[in-house]
Amino acid sequence: MENQQEVFVRMAMNAWNNYIKKADTLFKSLSDEQLLKQVAPGRNRGVYLVGHLAVVHDHLLELLGVGERLYTKFDEAYLSNPDKPGMELFPVAEVRKAWEITCQKTEEAFAKMQPADWFMKHTKMTDEDLVKEPYRNRLSVLISRTDHLAYHLGQVALIR
Amino acid sequence: MENQQEVFVRMAMNAWNNYIKKADTLFKSLSDEQLLKQVAPGRNRGVYLVGHLAVVHDHLLELLGVGERLYTKFDEAYLSNPDKPGMELFPVAEVRKAWEITCQKTEEAFAKMQPADWFMKHTKMTDEDLVKEPYRNRLSVLISRTDHLAYHLGQVALIR
Repeated sequence: MENQQEVFVRMAMNAWNNYIKKADTLFKSLSDEQLLKQVAPGRNRGVYLVGHLAVVHDHLLELLGVGERLYTKFDEAYLSNPDKPGMELFPVAEVRKAWEITCQKTEEAFAKMQPADWFMKHTKMTDEDLVKEPYRNRLSVLISRTDHLAYHLGQVALIR
Repeated sequence: MENQQEVFVRMAMNAWNNYIKKADTLFKSLSDEQLLKQVAPGRNRGVYLVGHLAVVHDHLLELLGVGERLYTKFDEAYLSNPDKPGMELFPVAEVRKAWEITCQKTEEAFAKMQPADWFMKHTKMTDEDLVKEPYRNRLSVLISRTDHLAYHLGQVALIR
């Protein structure tokens, strides 16, 4: 049997990879016209949620301290502000590309990490924080981002 | 620092409790009339998704081997079949009650479990399965059910 940390990381990583794959398959199955539709009347458009997930995962690299941000220009449109129907801040193709690039970047960064790296503090914690609350480590952030991805994926799936 | 298993169980359990609480707060904030609405045109009604989550969590007790099922009568309406608009198989109050009871039952069952219990096989695995794939343990099922809960919670939230 593998060591415990390796088992834990594999569990959380399997869940992350599973939802990244589901999301990627769904986004690719939707046309640009479909992505420009709202998930429900008066709610976010599909393309907004794709941009939102891309920028949240772009932030994740920095939060974990394993990569540089590439999409700070998406912050205002897809993170700090709600969807604005009619306003197309970035073309759908560019939002799709940002999703694809952040998937690649996170995959590459995570592949370089050893199991023990996931149990270290993220960049918003102090050493003391980790001693007091060891369960607030990088892997807990990955678990939380997987739930966040699932939450919005369920919404985008309504466009099909 | 607590032992590794305890840290990991706490990480997964925090995520589960967080989404259970979000869901419970949302369901209680919606009126019966709102729960009878579809989350998007032609899609599942809120009440269907509450029933679906209740019966999936009812199954979870049995799958983990930590409790008996209470809502087998919900299987046909909320698990084996998609939502049927207009058909009200169970009153909204009964579906709300099932959600509440399954929340209580899972909370009670999980409180009795020791960290090491979560790394044992669930009832659909053999001992050999666990040796070969130790990451397919009870805790991996909890992580997967948390993602499932988040997925549908994102949909019910559209009714607000």
